[in-house]
Amino acid sequence: MSLPRIAIDAMGGDEGVRVMIEGAALARRRHDQFQFLLVGDEERIKNALQDHPNLRASSEIIHTDGVISGEDKPSQALRRSKGTSMGRAIEAVKAGDAGAAVSGGNTGALMAISKLTLRTMPGIDRPALAALMPTLGDNDLIMLDLGANTECDSRNLVQFAIMGAAYARVVSGRAEPRVRLLNIGTEEIKGTELLRDASAILREAAKELSISFDGFTEADKMAHGNVDVVVTDGFSGNIALKAVEGTARFVADLLRRSFSSSLRSKIGFLISRPATELLKHHLDPNNHNGAVFLGLNGIVVKSHGGASAAGVANAVAVTARLLEERVTERISADLARVGDSSLWMPGAQEERA
Amino acid sequence: MSLPRIAIDAMGGDEGVRVMIEGAALARRRHDQFQFLLVGDEERIKNALQDHPNLRASSEIIHTDGVISGEDKPSQALRRSKGTSMGRAIEAVKAGDAGAAVSGGNTGALMAISKLTLRTMPGIDRPALAALMPTLGDNDLIMLDLGANTECDSRNLVQFAIMGAAYARVVSGRAEPRVRLLNIGTEEIKGTELLRDASAILREAAKELSISFDGFTEADKMAHGNVDVVVTDGFSGNIALKAVEGTARFVADLLRRSFSSSLRSKIGFLISRPATELLKHHLDPNNHNGAVFLGLNGIVVKSHGGASAAGVANAVAVTARLLEERVTERISADLARVGDSSLWMPGAQEERA
Repeated sequence: MSLPRIAIDAMGGDEGVRVMIEGAALARRRHDQFQFLLVGDEERIKNALQDHPNLRASSEIIHTDGVISGEDKPSQALRRSKGTSMGRAIEAVKAGDAGAAVSGGNTGALMAISKLTLRTMPGIDRPALAALMPTLGDNDLIMLDLGANTECDSRNLVQFAIMGAAYARVVSGRAEPRVRLLNIGTEEIKGTELLRDASAILREAAKELSISFDGFTEADKMAHGNVDVVVTDGFSGNIALKAVEGTARFVADLLRRSFSSSLRSKIGFLISRPATELLKHHLDPNNHNGAVFLGLNGIVVKSHGGASAAGVANAVAVTARLLEERVTERISADLARVGDSSLWMPGAQEERA
Repeated sequence: MSLPRIAIDAMGGDEGVRVMIEGAALARRRHDQFQFLLVGDEERIKNALQDHPNLRASSEIIHTDGVISGEDKPSQALRRSKGTSMGRAIEAVKAGDAGAAVSGGNTGALMAISKLTLRTMPGIDRPALAALMPTLGDNDLIMLDLGANTECDSRNLVQFAIMGAAYARVVSGRAEPRVRLLNIGTEEIKGTELLRDASAILREAAKELSISFDGFTEADKMAHGNVDVVVTDGFSGNIALKAVEGTARFVADLLRRSFSSSLRSKIGFLISRPATELLKHHLDPNNHNGAVFLGLNGIVVKSHGGASAAGVANAVAVTARLLEERVTERISADLARVGDSSLWMPGAQEERA
């Protein structure tokens, strides 16, 4: 069976068409079985493709005039969606013309359009936004939800755990990913009632779900590298993610200031450049680019608005791996295995109807 | 009027009596008007005081046999409190023998004993834990609540803002501290209903409260240095704080690994040592030690369990400044000024009764 195509919203992102196309071309070198749908201004896409004959040969262009801007509110984006590059890329997934869409545009708009167009998978009440975060261990960590759902109940959290574990099997290769709930302490009595409920359900269902579940983790332990999936509601997840990003930038800034504080420091910096380059590489958000909406009928990947071509390539590569490994199908299978468990999915079918 | 004494729980903290006493002695050099109550094993305190004649001359010792351990649950701690160094230190504040207590012991126990013994101030429904965090600006940032209240309503958040602002006037010297609510976006529609409510109330009351309130901030903007107080519930605050701490340690660890990755890097590191020492100083948690429980009838300061003597000295210095500046009285005055506002304190008097 051939692989589904990847739709690229060529107009999203702050850096414009050229970076999106170059990113897709870079990713295609690593995943050369993929075909692409490039959605946006045909003229500008063709121009950008001139430097990338391989991508041109494996792509189809869908022309659109409209673009969702960074200022568009989700409600406005939904109304304008049809004629825009973002809207058409997601439409292509719905129509089966592509298996996944990648966009560097407005997150709120992408979330709203994706949810309305693709709808949630059977067995999932709400999609979640999942991203990879660096750790001191061998694998990146998967954290979800990062902001798709401000408030969640315990059932949502359990579903996020199932989706995150399916993703982790792709990223880490572990058959039983190590899953934890984000909390403010590791004792069973800590946190909110809904966290304790979710913990009890996951303990019960862990074996059936092929996950290694061991309760709670804290935000300062995430990077240790001994956990594969951290599950949280979208509010806490967004705060944790931004606190991590902000602190990494803060420390990098302090480092820059420190190194330029004297001639001696500047010389030391030049000599130790390989070391600081290594650090820079590790902390560069481009190397962890590509947050995924899981739980929809189709995959939507958000690339950072300011991503470089290398960053876009990482987001496209994430997408390619999710398709190659059939993560959506795997999540369905996991859900089906525990599908009639009244513990974690009470009344889900009714509510969605 | 003379300054109230500071009670030191000499037995709390992982590093033992010697570090607590040395920390108090260091702080006393900067705040030499203060008298101390040293609570714990008399023999060991006397031994530790031999190196610190100045502190010895300005201290009284209260002997206790018991110690609250790191493993004690809050409920156990409450039962055992009476004969312990932590319990007696807080008792001393209640009895008026001291104006504040400093402990490096178990946070949950300290919170429970402090709340039960000292009770909340008139006009405050719940105390909050506030800490200083480094920024790229001139002042440290005050963030609260950091874990005293897992779930909060909008009235709690408004009260935290009032308490945080009073503390910020001491730290930054600003008459109208810049106060923000922590949220997952800055648009007015973002986040939970209770955040939007709290925002509306604070906008209304800002002038009366002498604060500069401008809605929401995000966790990646906190360190920019353009905000003095970030207000949040204890769950999100604890997650943000730990994410910041964990990331700072993660980056420091990466830096260490990078610099030791080659001989060249090691040489560069040695040359640029003044720069990395500067960074280390900035990131050392000892330099931001001392989280304060605000909103109680008396001040309780939590020193980090693993703090060095310099760290303990910072926590004691924070305590001294809060007493010198009469922060508790100032919070009372701020509350009285807006005391009958039904907006932010509906039914508070009744509920506490």
